[in-house]
Amino acid sequence: MRKIKAIVYGVGAMNAIITRMMLEKGVEIVGAISRSPEKVGKDLGELTGLGNSLGVAVSDDPAAVLSLGADIAVIAINSYMEEAQQQLRLCAEHGVNAVTLSEEAIYPWDTSPQITQELDSIAKRSGVTLTGSGHQDTYWVNMVRLLMGTAHRIESVTGQASWNVDDYGPEVAKDQQVGASREAFEQWLSSSSRPPTFGRNILDGLVASLGLTPISVTTATKPVITEQSLPAKSLGITVPAGAVAGFTDIDEIQTREGMRLTFEMTGRVYREGEADINHWRIEGEPALELDNGAVPTQITTCSQLVNRIPDVINAPPGFVTVEKLPLLSYRPLNLENYLS
Amino acid sequence: MRKIKAIVYGVGAMNAIITRMMLEKGVEIVGAISRSPEKVGKDLGELTGLGNSLGVAVSDDPAAVLSLGADIAVIAINSYMEEAQQQLRLCAEHGVNAVTLSEEAIYPWDTSPQITQELDSIAKRSGVTLTGSGHQDTYWVNMVRLLMGTAHRIESVTGQASWNVDDYGPEVAKDQQVGASREAFEQWLSSSSRPPTFGRNILDGLVASLGLTPISVTTATKPVITEQSLPAKSLGITVPAGAVAGFTDIDEIQTREGMRLTFEMTGRVYREGEADINHWRIEGEPALELDNGAVPTQITTCSQLVNRIPDVINAPPGFVTVEKLPLLSYRPLNLENYLS
Repeated sequence: MRKIKAIVYGVGAMNAIITRMMLEKGVEIVGAISRSPEKVGKDLGELTGLGNSLGVAVSDDPAAVLSLGADIAVIAINSYMEEAQQQLRLCAEHGVNAVTLSEEAIYPWDTSPQITQELDSIAKRSGVTLTGSGHQDTYWVNMVRLLMGTAHRIESVTGQASWNVDDYGPEVAKDQQVGASREAFEQWLSSSSRPPTFGRNILDGLVASLGLTPISVTTATKPVITEQSLPAKSLGITVPAGAVAGFTDIDEIQTREGMRLTFEMTGRVYREGEADINHWRIEGEPALELDNGAVPTQITTCSQLVNRIPDVINAPPGFVTVEKLPLLSYRPLNLENYLS
Repeated sequence: MRKIKAIVYGVGAMNAIITRMMLEKGVEIVGAISRSPEKVGKDLGELTGLGNSLGVAVSDDPAAVLSLGADIAVIAINSYMEEAQQQLRLCAEHGVNAVTLSEEAIYPWDTSPQITQELDSIAKRSGVTLTGSGHQDTYWVNMVRLLMGTAHRIESVTGQASWNVDDYGPEVAKDQQVGASREAFEQWLSSSSRPPTFGRNILDGLVASLGLTPISVTTATKPVITEQSLPAKSLGITVPAGAVAGFTDIDEIQTREGMRLTFEMTGRVYREGEADINHWRIEGEPALELDNGAVPTQITTCSQLVNRIPDVINAPPGFVTVEKLPLLSYRPLNLENYLS
């Protein structure tokens, strides 16, 4: 049985962890791609902090690297299909399966239908599979589907998740309005044109997997106001009491069949000791609940993408979203053992 | 599209709920089987408290009812394969798919290998599927598998679940040693020959789904001693402080690959306001957690069996355990819509 050959597409924090995990599961890394001049030419092992050379020099020529031949490319570069389509198209055109962390790719059929259909066509012509995975694969889509699968009758599904704005640097903290006054926040909200929230894609995937028909799709945003002053390390400031520590996006889909699905995603500056949450509640017969305690989102983002690699290679060609893939399995052995 | 035809095999508390749920999901009930003289000849609708007649008289002749022709039999009679094989064999011999609540049937390949292999052969010859489902399908097997699927490296998996002894009448309460002194409990434990615990079957299923090799399988039992006096309604007594309120079975499998799996199942008399729990923890990279709050075990036992009906009918012939079936799905439409 030969090893799985992978290409690392994007050399940042996430693909550093993914590179290590793939190596620990017997994947052979045959190439690495980055646009950053300070990374090009350097060894992937050095850039990802592995402490040893992998004999893989980072290249800024995607076509050349993808032409080396690989079973899969692991992409960690951007969030939206508008940008992600470039990497996904290149992989498909070169006959390389690809799995991406781009959040919209978890279920892009409703938010970017044209791009997704085009990628699906190219992938089918080339005989490869394109998939979006990451933390949302299990925690926001498939574990929720499974919880729903234990209900007899569902009236509503409500999810709550959070992330710490302070973990992602000053740009993200500014985008998340950290430190703004309540008035400044409302002004920003009424004047800004923000891209679709990722919660929308999660709910689209859940609704589609059940064969339900959306009749209304809404997004509301509300500020998280801190009651006590709150240090924001990413900005080097202290947010005063009464000011904005971040905000919550509330996506909601009402279906013709009567089921309402809501997902509340909060990005805010955490207090000491706080952690990411994942909590879902179903109202119906019976009422059901799911909670994952302190969720290590960064690691589960990477571990799920890596564990998905055999599923993506095994899947039929096309843009195949995760609700159509098998139940995600732990991989005690090297990944090539799970190829069909 | 024609309705799914079902036979209700065993007319007790669980199949009363299951009968209602099947009717609400468009299943046609064509027969009902019970040995109880006080049930035979009565209408299934009357016996299951539906408040209306179903035109289905309960029969004590399984062969005659199974010869009516049905897509599936739903069995809720007993717990162990030693007894369950009788109903499962009859279904298979009459060419009727079957799904049973018998706890051992969730993964009986290691605890009753001969019986299971024989049933598998009969089912394959007849072209039908036999499956065990119930609360354990998702909460103790497949949701745990999915949680594991988000880990990079697992050292141990530990589950904790509980049930209220007071819900199941005086016989079960006596079996669970409610009210015994600590000394009487130890004497009972050392002298009794108990059947295998259901935790064993859960762990067998998890280990098998990962392709791991067990090197040791152990069960330990410890009493739950009440600190304050505790009313036990099922027995009409008050358990004094320092006496036994029930006990915990701790099943554990150590695998050659290094992973240890433990399941602690507690059956004890609850205090006012307590509910069933389901809590799992994974140690490894990363540490992971799953909690389902107050678990409505009785309803999820029935709802999962009903939602599994299309999967069992769709599955290839044989004894097919739930870790090989698709991710359990919610069924917003009548069940015949999910046949492949």
